[in-house]
Amino acid sequence: MIAVLKQGATKQQRDSLCEWFKNMGLEVHISEGKYKTIIGLIGDTSKVDIELLESLSIIESVKRISEPFKNANRKFHTEDSVVDVGGVKIGGGNFAIIAGPCSVETREQVMAVAKAVKASGAKLLRGGAFKPRTSPYDFQGLKADGIELLLEAKRETGLPIVSEIMNINDIELFRDVDLIQVGARNMQNFDLLKALGKTDKPILLKRGLANNLKELLMSAEYIMAGGNERVILCERGIRTFETYTRNTLDLSAVPMLHELTHLPVIVDPSHATGISRLVESMSLAAAASGADGVMIEVHNDPERALCDGAQSLTPEQFDRVAKRVMKVREALS
Amino acid sequence: MIAVLKQGATKQQRDSLCEWFKNMGLEVHISEGKYKTIIGLIGDTSKVDIELLESLSIIESVKRISEPFKNANRKFHTEDSVVDVGGVKIGGGNFAIIAGPCSVETREQVMAVAKAVKASGAKLLRGGAFKPRTSPYDFQGLKADGIELLLEAKRETGLPIVSEIMNINDIELFRDVDLIQVGARNMQNFDLLKALGKTDKPILLKRGLANNLKELLMSAEYIMAGGNERVILCERGIRTFETYTRNTLDLSAVPMLHELTHLPVIVDPSHATGISRLVESMSLAAAASGADGVMIEVHNDPERALCDGAQSLTPEQFDRVAKRVMKVREALS
Amino acid sequence: MIAVLKQGATKQQRDSLCEWFKNMGLEVHISEGKYKTIIGLIGDTSKVDIELLESLSIIESVKRISEPFKNANRKFHTEDSVVDVGGVKIGGGNFAIIAGPCSVETREQVMAVAKAVKASGAKLLRGGAFKPRTSPYDFQGLKADGIELLLEAKRETGLPIVSEIMNINDIELFRDVDLIQVGARNMQNFDLLKALGKTDKPILLKRGLANNLKELLMSAEYIMAGGNERVILCERGIRTFETYTRNTLDLSAVPMLHELTHLPVIVDPSHATGISRLVESMSLAAAASGADGVMIEVHNDPERALCDGAQSLTPEQFDRVAKRVMKVREALS
Amino acid sequence: MIAVLKQGATKQQRDSLCEWFKNMGLEVHISEGKYKTIIGLIGDTSKVDIELLESLSIIESVKRISEPFKNANRKFHTEDSVVDVGGVKIGGGNFAIIAGPCSVETREQVMAVAKAVKASGAKLLRGGAFKPRTSPYDFQGLKADGIELLLEAKRETGLPIVSEIMNINDIELFRDVDLIQVGARNMQNFDLLKALGKTDKPILLKRGLANNLKELLMSAEYIMAGGNERVILCERGIRTFETYTRNTLDLSAVPMLHELTHLPVIVDPSHATGISRLVESMSLAAAASGADGVMIEVHNDPERALCDGAQSLTPEQFDRVAKRVMKVREALS
Repeated sequence: MIAVLKQGATKQQRDSLCEWFKNMGLEVHISEGKYKTIIGLIGDTSKVDIELLESLSIIESVKRISEPFKNANRKFHTEDSVVDVGGVKIGGGNFAIIAGPCSVETREQVMAVAKAVKASGAKLLRGGAFKPRTSPYDFQGLKADGIELLLEAKRETGLPIVSEIMNINDIELFRDVDLIQVGARNMQNFDLLKALGKTDKPILLKRGLANNLKELLMSAEYIMAGGNERVILCERGIRTFETYTRNTLDLSAVPMLHELTHLPVIVDPSHATGISRLVESMSLAAAASGADGVMIEVHNDPERALCDGAQSLTPEQFDRVAKRVMKVREALS
Repeated sequence: MIAVLKQGATKQQRDSLCEWFKNMGLEVHISEGKYKTIIGLIGDTSKVDIELLESLSIIESVKRISEPFKNANRKFHTEDSVVDVGGVKIGGGNFAIIAGPCSVETREQVMAVAKAVKASGAKLLRGGAFKPRTSPYDFQGLKADGIELLLEAKRETGLPIVSEIMNINDIELFRDVDLIQVGARNMQNFDLLKALGKTDKPILLKRGLANNLKELLMSAEYIMAGGNERVILCERGIRTFETYTRNTLDLSAVPMLHELTHLPVIVDPSHATGISRLVESMSLAAAASGADGVMIEVHNDPERALCDGAQSLTPEQFDRVAKRVMKVREALS
Repeated sequence: MIAVLKQGATKQQRDSLCEWFKNMGLEVHISEGKYKTIIGLIGDTSKVDIELLESLSIIESVKRISEPFKNANRKFHTEDSVVDVGGVKIGGGNFAIIAGPCSVETREQVMAVAKAVKASGAKLLRGGAFKPRTSPYDFQGLKADGIELLLEAKRETGLPIVSEIMNINDIELFRDVDLIQVGARNMQNFDLLKALGKTDKPILLKRGLANNLKELLMSAEYIMAGGNERVILCERGIRTFETYTRNTLDLSAVPMLHELTHLPVIVDPSHATGISRLVESMSLAAAASGADGVMIEVHNDPERALCDGAQSLTPEQFDRVAKRVMKVREALS
Repeated sequence: MIAVLKQGATKQQRDSLCEWFKNMGLEVHISEGKYKTIIGLIGDTSKVDIELLESLSIIESVKRISEPFKNANRKFHTEDSVVDVGGVKIGGGNFAIIAGPCSVETREQVMAVAKAVKASGAKLLRGGAFKPRTSPYDFQGLKADGIELLLEAKRETGLPIVSEIMNINDIELFRDVDLIQVGARNMQNFDLLKALGKTDKPILLKRGLANNLKELLMSAEYIMAGGNERVILCERGIRTFETYTRNTLDLSAVPMLHELTHLPVIVDPSHATGISRLVESMSLAAAASGADGVMIEVHNDPERALCDGAQSLTPEQFDRVAKRVMKVREALS
């Protein structure tokens, strides 16, 4: 960490600041120039509150050299983490296709989709029971009944299941869900993250629409700091000025995250684009970029999907995508 | 609402679609062209799920003409709403300066700041007891003890208090807080919004960093749909590519929101800019833009503020800002 | 095109508006509702000035149904365009790897890089002679001498060359350049586009940092309207709030553009990410997404590159990337 | 400037790097830690190419402490610059209202608007002769004839005139234009900036839609490096995800620019919002934020404006805005 002092700083102020740093166990190095004095801090600076430092009157600016996420940081854990989700491994060379309907609607729908996606090679079944919707007047999900239907489909097909949690009070309802999803809108719902950090469940953490990679990793850190290290990250598009697609899929996040962290990284091309016609090409691109998995919406009757139908594939379309994704994986192995 | 049909749509598909619209109580108008058929829908379309419509195979695109927020909509409630917060009116020509520390830290701090800002003309006291911080290692607030200290300051000064809620399970703790703030990161924590819609408390709803005005109004709608119409909106900066300021204050949101909704709109220049030196000019600009209030961070010792010190004013600086804000208000009255 | 009239519009105003539309050769369809009147316009609306319409006092809003780019539009030209660049075909199934140094620096450098990238499978040589730099104090390129060196390398290797033009007065200098690049900062330099539309040169049009796909296509339209239909589009990253990468590569632009236009679309992963370590994964992703080519920066000595060294590959790294890109292409063919 | 070395850097590499810095006349300060070595550079670093440095293999990261714009920098020129435009002073406490039509259309229009805005207090007349339009099929301006009409209006009213240049070859046409505007799309048309730097004309430099403040100042630096120091900056909205307004007016740019540079800063609320109903409130906010002027579109018949009519005020509306803007100025003086 580097702190630049303002021109007017007195020697006494500087000394008392350095004393404070030393008391935090940091090594202090001073470069004194004609116009500026620069203080280099070396040691564990992850717990230094950078905003507090910046607010001091003698400080002109502060810059971290190391990233403030410790548990998620690749530097302190060079091996890829492999997360086991109900027997399916994700990360460290293990690639998983996750598929299923946006919303769980009926037993028939879930069963039909689950069997179809399993046959095409999906390793996990996704399905929304609690649905975050922008409008209070839109369909909000089957809730507990939706979880029940997913569990039935799991018993029938053997596919571990993934579903989104929205409320800290619902954790108990998710006890048999194999991978608990934190949606983009809750990526900084810190109390929910802390509570999930106390569970022993794998967590699928989606990047928020306006959150940078550092914030995504800090949110993973909230979960990991509680003791739960089984976190999978998910890029699902960020909000930009472009309106042809619902969001802008930031695929460079995949190699960048792989550099910054040991956690697995998957991609959700369905929510990222919001357009089913773009899902195939973005799934292939995700696989080529080095992602550890893709999560794709599949509906047996997209015409009548209660939500997000515009971005769902039919089972037939999904079958083609899954096969082509695997071809890309093989070509690059 | 307008729906454009795809070229291949058959007459039968079209008729069955129109039937469905009529069953929802909508008037249907058809314009048939050589290449396109356009269906105009007139009536209460606020409960039509636009994504469902878009997913139908015969639909090319759908466009709302009326906004889907009903309770918050200026069209159905042309008078400005005035929200009474512990005796202080906000909106409809009533302007309020809200001030106080980012975080509640000690009794001495809260009391000193409360008295100072009251003397300078603040009408409400703000203070954070629960703090949403990007890093799990940063100070997270005094929590329940912080609320207690704010209540003491209220008893001492008579200023109604504002504080941020982060957890749906803390609502009871906020029973004596006059204005409950929903922070930017929780703007789409829909379960929290629904729960607040069941209370009789005024709610200060901050715009999310990547949320557009429609989404802000839809979140207000979540609260209002539950029966609580006492919502105050707050512009506090959005996330853009510009990095000189922490966020980009979107002041045109003020007149735009006043056109779209009858709810009061205030501005938080401290969080928007993240730089105390810019707070004065942005407070003046907010007042000139027609905002119904400003919320300003004030700390008696910014050098040692536990969080966000870089954006806090001293009581002396705040006094100057408050006086100049009132001059702008008078000049334009 | 759809126009929604304001509530107060009189029958006379409406009639005169409809008359005006009919005089433009458009079919007019009116849907009259209790609260709104909607006018549907069918025919060639590409030349209607939408801002003019929106400014009329009786108009509430206007929406185009068809896109206003006519020459570039896939609807009116369903076959993929194939652009021939000095004998190398791009588009319609023809994939081209373009490679070379960011800046042309010395004869030795250009020759060494040209030979190396040719050996690895590159079909065109890129090199900057005129360099747009944010700072007036940074290296601005070898200019005419740089073009000369590129032409020498072309004579030596047979690779057609690509270079960026910045000034309308330099077109004559580019008479032997096979593909003239318009950089992101000049995407809306309309006078330059018009002038290039009068030439018979293939044009590589890069998307601006804050330009959406429609604007990119309208800029292509500027060139095509002048008679030059040989335009290749290039996605090279857009500006977002994310700062880990220099820009955010918007790969979903590739399939989206292929849907909207018949023009070839290539991707520049070097400028998009600004980080050489990310170029391989983003090149592979671009190929998998269906791009018609990739343009990659290669330098024989990135340590001493006069500009943008941080994003250049060594010839060895490029060789690996080129081979793997072709593997992805084969796997998906 | 600070450079952080990578862990593996050898002593020899470090010494040769330090030698290189010293040869550039910089003072070099080294802080050696267990994990990192930090080099502080003091002196005139404005001409160091930061990308070149970052590309060296032994460098982990580089950070500027001083801004790389030298002529525009407030640090080296602490007094506000006052730019004289045909006798009208702008900056350093001198506030100017600039007004006129988006496009020059007819003699009658220009004369009528010029007289009206002068009567209401405008100090300069604006008018577009060359119009940058997204579509090649939209009206492109009266060009040289438009300049002639503006000059006539100047002779008639005495108001100095402002008009936008788009082509480096048109500079001679602008010889009698008092303030030459560089539009947002040309903010990084570096050849145009250099050419304008050779003239003795005041330049109004508009911020690009996706350009940060540093880039705006670097573009000013392009003009100033050529010897022309008479630059006025203009904030006119940036591109964000919000679509209710055409762009997002970034008013915090006003105080931030005043801190960074001595150049005058004005605001264009018409282009920023694209909605005439928002122009009054944003003009007032701009004045309150400390801007040195506002530039407002006024049309005598907005119903028939050939472009951008949606954002133009009538002369009556402008009269009210101008009077209220001056009230804000007085209240804060």
